[in-house]
Amino acid sequence: MSHYQKLVQHAQKIANFNHLAAISGWDQAAVMPSGGNDARSKAMAELSVLLHQLNTESQLADWFHEAEQEHLSPIEKASLREMKQRWQQANVLPQDLVQAKSLAGSKCEHAWRTQRKENDWKGFSQNWQEVVSLSQQEAQIRAEASNTTPYDAMLALYEPGTTTSSLDVVFNDVKTWLPNLIDRVIDKQDQESFIQPVGPFDTANQKALGLQIMQFLKFDFNHGRLDESVHPFCGGVPTDVRITTRYDENDLVQSLMGTIHETGHARYEQGLPKEYAGLPVGEARSMGIHESQSLFFEMQLGRSSEFINHLSRLASQQFNATSDPAFGAENFHKLYTRVEKGFIRVDADELTYPAHVILRYEIERDLMNGTISFQDVPELWDQKMQNYLGLSTKGNYQNGCMQDIHWTDGAFGYFPSYTLGAMYAAQFMASMRQQVDVQAAIQSGDLSLIFAWLSENIWNKGSQFMTDDLVKQATGETLNAQHFKTHLETRYL
Amino acid sequence: MSHYQKLVQHAQKIANFNHLAAISGWDQAAVMPSGGNDARSKAMAELSVLLHQLNTESQLADWFHEAEQEHLSPIEKASLREMKQRWQQANVLPQDLVQAKSLAGSKCEHAWRTQRKENDWKGFSQNWQEVVSLSQQEAQIRAEASNTTPYDAMLALYEPGTTTSSLDVVFNDVKTWLPNLIDRVIDKQDQESFIQPVGPFDTANQKALGLQIMQFLKFDFNHGRLDESVHPFCGGVPTDVRITTRYDENDLVQSLMGTIHETGHARYEQGLPKEYAGLPVGEARSMGIHESQSLFFEMQLGRSSEFINHLSRLASQQFNATSDPAFGAENFHKLYTRVEKGFIRVDADELTYPAHVILRYEIERDLMNGTISFQDVPELWDQKMQNYLGLSTKGNYQNGCMQDIHWTDGAFGYFPSYTLGAMYAAQFMASMRQQVDVQAAIQSGDLSLIFAWLSENIWNKGSQFMTDDLVKQATGETLNAQHFKTHLETRYL
Ligand SMILES: [Zn+2]
Ligand SMILES: [Zn+2]
Repeated sequence: MSHYQKLVQHAQKIANFNHLAAISGWDQAAVMPSGGNDARSKAMAELSVLLHQLNTESQLADWFHEAEQEHLSPIEKASLREMKQRWQQANVLPQDLVQAKSLAGSKCEHAWRTQRKENDWKGFSQNWQEVVSLSQQEAQIRAEASNTTPYDAMLALYEPGTTTSSLDVVFNDVKTWLPNLIDRVIDKQDQESFIQPVGPFDTANQKALGLQIMQFLKFDFNHGRLDESVHPFCGGVPTDVRITTRYDENDLVQSLMGTIHETGHARYEQGLPKEYAGLPVGEARSMGIHESQSLFFEMQLGRSSEFINHLSRLASQQFNATSDPAFGAENFHKLYTRVEKGFIRVDADELTYPAHVILRYEIERDLMNGTISFQDVPELWDQKMQNYLGLSTKGNYQNGCMQDIHWTDGAFGYFPSYTLGAMYAAQFMASMRQQVDVQAAIQSGDLSLIFAWLSENIWNKGSQFMTDDLVKQATGETLNAQHFKTHLETRYL
Repeated sequence: MSHYQKLVQHAQKIANFNHLAAISGWDQAAVMPSGGNDARSKAMAELSVLLHQLNTESQLADWFHEAEQEHLSPIEKASLREMKQRWQQANVLPQDLVQAKSLAGSKCEHAWRTQRKENDWKGFSQNWQEVVSLSQQEAQIRAEASNTTPYDAMLALYEPGTTTSSLDVVFNDVKTWLPNLIDRVIDKQDQESFIQPVGPFDTANQKALGLQIMQFLKFDFNHGRLDESVHPFCGGVPTDVRITTRYDENDLVQSLMGTIHETGHARYEQGLPKEYAGLPVGEARSMGIHESQSLFFEMQLGRSSEFINHLSRLASQQFNATSDPAFGAENFHKLYTRVEKGFIRVDADELTYPAHVILRYEIERDLMNGTISFQDVPELWDQKMQNYLGLSTKGNYQNGCMQDIHWTDGAFGYFPSYTLGAMYAAQFMASMRQQVDVQAAIQSGDLSLIFAWLSENIWNKGSQFMTDDLVKQATGETLNAQHFKTHLETRYL
C-alpha cells in the first residue's frame, strides 16, 4: 500500500469518528434532555482526545514525507494538500497551550453568559485577557510555522488562502460606500409604509411551512432532517445533514429565513462529491464559501421578489391569511428587505451586516497582531460603530464588544467569513445570470438550473481547489466586491 | 495509582465510547433518514473496532492480576469481578472467529428478512448452518475457558450465574402445569364477551396518552425521551434513557403496553447507582433482571385491575370516549388479559409466552451442546408446539423456527431471559406485597412506595451482587417459579 493510500485510510478513520462527534453534537443541541449533559460532555471530550491523537499520530510525518515523493494524479495531489494542511494545523501547537486555551475559553464563555446580561466588562475582561493572550501565543506559533502574520495564521483556520492584505483592500473599499448607501436606503424606506403581520403563528404551522420551503429548495430528506434548537445550525454529515431552526410564535420572518439559510448550508453538504466522502478534499472549501451558499439561498434567492411571491403565497395558505394584506407579496418584500441600524450583529439586515463584520475584523486583526490591547477594545468598538453606523456603545458593553460568543473562547479569524460569504454569493449570482435566466427560473418554481450551476461550480468541487481558484473557475475572476455593491444598490435603491 | 484505579479509569473510558455507541444506535433506529445508513454503519463499525481494542488491551491482564492482590472494599471487589468478567468474555475468542461469526450472522440475518416472507427454509438453512457451526465453536471455546457446558457458557453472556441445570428444573416444572392452565383459561374466557374498541386512534393522541402514563410511572423526562421506531427498544445511557414505541392507528393496546414495558426498562436504567456510573458494577445485573423490571411494569402493575382503571379513565378522556363501553375498565381488563394460542412469540400474551420461550430454550440448549443438528430444528419445533400449545408448524417455517431474529446472527442463550424476567417479576411482587399495600397504592395513583421498593432492592444495587444473591436479598429466596404460577392462576382463573 502506498503512503498516500495509508493517509487516505487514516483520514477515513478520522471521518468515522468525526461522524459520531457530529451526530452526538446535534443530539446534544436538538434532542438531549438537559440532565444528560454531564455524561454527554464527558463522552464527547473523550472523543476529542481520541481525535486529537489520530490527527497527530507520530507516524504521519513520515507518511506525508513519503507520499509527497509518490506519483499522484492532480486530484490525489489536492487530497494530499488538504490532509497535510489539517495535520499541520493540528500539530503545530504544543499540547499544554491547546489545553490552557480550551480551559480559559470554557471559563470565559461560561462566565460571559451571566456577565453579558449584567454589562460587566470588568469581570469579563479579567477572564478574557487570558483568552486573548493565549490566542496571541497561538497566532504567533502558527504564524512562525506558516511564515505569515499572526492574524493571517488564524484566518487560515477558517479561510485558507485568504490574507489580511486582500481583506484590507476589499473591506476598505466597502467602507468607502457602505455608510452612505445605508443612509440613502433608510431615507428611502422612511417614505414607505408596511404592515407587520399579527401573530401568534403557531409552531406546527411554521414548521409545516418551513418544510414546504425546504422541499421547494430541493433539500434531500432522504439525507437529512429539520429539527429545533436554541441556536440554529447546520450539522450532521453529508449523507445525513441535520439543520435546526427556532420558532417564535410572534415572529414569522425569523424562523422562515433561518430555515432557508440553513437549507443553503445543507445543500452544499448534500452536494459535496461522493467519490471523496470521508476525505478532506471532499469537504466544504471554507467557512466563507459555506456562508456563500447559505447566503445565496437566504439573500440572493430568498429575498428576490420572485421568491417572495412564492413565500407570500405559501405562508398565506398555511396561515389561512390569503386575504390579509400583511401576507401580500409586496408587503412581504418590504418586511424582508427592511434596513435598520442596530447594535446587534445577529439581528442585522443584509445591508448593515458588513459594517458589523468589518468592525470586528479590524479589531481582531490588530489584537492578534499585537498592535492593540484587549483594554482598547470597548473604545475602538464605540468609535467604529459611530463611524460605520452612527451609533454609540459607550458604556454599553452587552450590546457592544461583549455581544458575540466567538471571541469568548478565542475563535479569532472567523468573523470575515460572514461578509466574504455575502460577497461570493453576489459574485456567483452575477455569473450565474450570464448562463441562467434566474428570475424566470424562480418564477416558474423550478429552480433546478440554479442548483445545477451551484452543484457544478461549487458543491461538487469540494476542496479540490483553493478558494481563489474555485471562484475564478466559477466566475472568471477572484473575489470582486463590486458585484456585492451592485447587488445591494439594485435591491435597495 | 493502584491497578484497581487504573482499571476504573479504563472502564470509564470504555463507558464514554459506549455512550456514543448507544446514542448513535438510538439515532439510527429512531431519527436517521435511511440515506444516512451506509456512512453511519461504517462509523459505528469503526467504533466497535475501537471498543474491542479497549476491551482487550494487552496490559489489562497484568492490571487484573495486580488488582486482585490489592486491598479492596467489598464494593471494589464486586467492581473488579464485573470488570474482569467482561474482559474475559471479550478476550476468550480468537479474533478470526469473532469476525467470521459477525460476517456469517450479518449475511444470514440480511437474507432472512426476505427468506422468512417466502417461507424459504432451504435457503435460510444454508446460511444458518454456518452461523450455528460458528456459534458452536464459540460456545465450545467459552465453555473450556469457564469450565462449563457450551450452552451454559453462552447463557453467561446474558445471565451470568444462571445454569442449564437450574433452568431445567424451573422450566420442567412449568411444563407440568402450563399447558393445562392455558386450556382452562381459554375455556373460561370463551364464555366471556368483550368489545374491541374501534379506531382509528390517531398517533398524536396515542403519544399524548403514552406520555401521561409515563408521567404516572414517574419516568424522569429530565433524563430521557420517548420516540418512535419500527422495533421498540430501550436505549441510550442511564442519564439519558431513550425509549421508543410504535403506533398502529387501528390498535390502541399494543403501543400503550409497549410504552409501559419500555418505561420499566427505563426506570431501572435511570435508577442505577450514580456513584458507580461508568463502571460495570453500576450497570444492570442481567438481561433477565432487566426484563423483570419491564415485565413488573407491564404485567404486574400494568395489567392489574387497579392500574387498568387508571388506563381506562385516561384513554377514554384522551379519545373523547368516556361513554364508550369499549373504553370501560371492565372491558379494558378483558382486552388486556385475553389469552390465545398463537404461532408468534412477540404477539403472545402473558400466559402462553413461557411456552414459546421454553421451546426455544430446549432447542438452542441442545444445538449448542451438539446433541441435535440444525436440520432437526423444524421437526423439533413442530413437536414442541404440538405438545405445549397444540399447534402444528409442519411446513410453516416462517411462523415456526424462522420467526425470530435472535438465532439468525447467533444470539443463542438470550431467550430464557424473557421468562426468567416474568418469574422474577412475580417473585418481586409477592415479596413487595408483604411490605407495601400494592393495590391501595396503585388505586391512589401514588406509586412511590412501589418504586421505592424496586429502587432499594433492585435498581440501586446495579451489579453489586450476583443474580441469586440479589434475588435472595430482595425476596428471601432464589428463583422460585411458584410465585409465577400463583400469579397466573390468581389473575386468569
Ligand atoms: Zn450560516
Ligand atoms: Zn423488554
